[in-house]
Amino acid sequence: MNKRGILVVVSGFSGSGKGTIMKQLLEEHADTYALSISATTRAPRPGETHGKEYFFVSREEFEEMIRQGALIEHAQYVNNYYGTPKDYVYQQLEMGRDVILEIEIQGALKVKKAYPETLLLFVSPPGAEELKHRLVDRGTEDEATIASRLSRAWQEAQGVENYDYFIINDNLEECVQEVHSIIRSEHARVARNHVLIEHIRAELKNFAKGE
Amino acid sequence: MNKRGILVVVSGFSGSGKGTIMKQLLEEHADTYALSISATTRAPRPGETHGKEYFFVSREEFEEMIRQGALIEHAQYVNNYYGTPKDYVYQQLEMGRDVILEIEIQGALKVKKAYPETLLLFVSPPGAEELKHRLVDRGTEDEATIASRLSRAWQEAQGVENYDYFIINDNLEECVQEVHSIIRSEHARVARNHVLIEHIRAELKNFAKGE
Repeated sequence: MNKRGILVVVSGFSGSGKGTIMKQLLEEHADTYALSISATTRAPRPGETHGKEYFFVSREEFEEMIRQGALIEHAQYVNNYYGTPKDYVYQQLEMGRDVILEIEIQGALKVKKAYPETLLLFVSPPGAEELKHRLVDRGTEDEATIASRLSRAWQEAQGVENYDYFIINDNLEECVQEVHSIIRSEHARVARNHVLIEHIRAELKNFAKGE
Repeated sequence: MNKRGILVVVSGFSGSGKGTIMKQLLEEHADTYALSISATTRAPRPGETHGKEYFFVSREEFEEMIRQGALIEHAQYVNNYYGTPKDYVYQQLEMGRDVILEIEIQGALKVKKAYPETLLLFVSPPGAEELKHRLVDRGTEDEATIASRLSRAWQEAQGVENYDYFIINDNLEECVQEVHSIIRSEHARVARNHVLIEHIRAELKNFAKGE
């Protein structure tokens, strides 16, 4: 198959378990995948390392990155910038690694627009009831927060049609296997193999001419 | 995932090994896949059974099937009709089986036009050199036949862009596994899960309203 990696955007309802799936996927296939590291202007929390959880940069540095077109996408939350630096992603793709980008739906659509070959995966619990249970079971959110998350989930669900795959997280192990299988399969898409196909076609032409 | 089967058309260069791959796939996953059985007006050869290798029908019966729209696609070779009866395919799809249809590129494109949700797979040897070796190794064709097959392969290669996946048959076992994986993954495509997505969306809406 082709050697270049695929840029994979993963989104999903809060409570879908997408974080756990991606963590497991990266642990099981460390050579195959790389997790994109975001740049942010927020201060590091205890235990966070520059270049691991985030690239921590100043507001001036971030705005310079925007100006230079050094970010694939960026957004602002609560006075802080968050964005995806191009360099790291491109390096990894060139090395043949599939790069996983965990972002929400608005960012995902921006990335797809800029890079149409991006693969968009959406992770969902088996149903809304299960989603509610998972949010309640966390025990960290009060009822109002859960209601607001469910309402947010409903809004997010409007954008799902723009994604390529809709993955049900019913069982963690099976789901990790499915995500892996989907990304591997994508490498064989005709649209991702034009160079290879053109090469075989040229060879066939020569052989048919008896060369 | 959704329960309905997927109609899978498999084509490939003569010498690509697609027949062997499909045979193996069906043996390994007899409950998952069904092979579409063609109808033909040619006489059965010794050992061939009606309803197994082919549905053997008379010319009048075949032309009646055409008139009634009972065929997904059909073509005529050397005075005989060959076609794909709808009934059997639909039955199997309804039962949740993915139905494999082995036809050449012209038929494949006709099927895709009539049923846009059809999955088109194209099987190729690793390169033209390998294809030539395989044709020579068969020992059944003379040089002129091989040249004509290679020339035919080159013509067929023009239509590959209309396929969904381009699968390299380098190693039989790996290739069977890859085809299986591609078809399983395809079940999670957003375009194949509109009903499920709409269902989850409706549930979320109710929950968000606190019902």
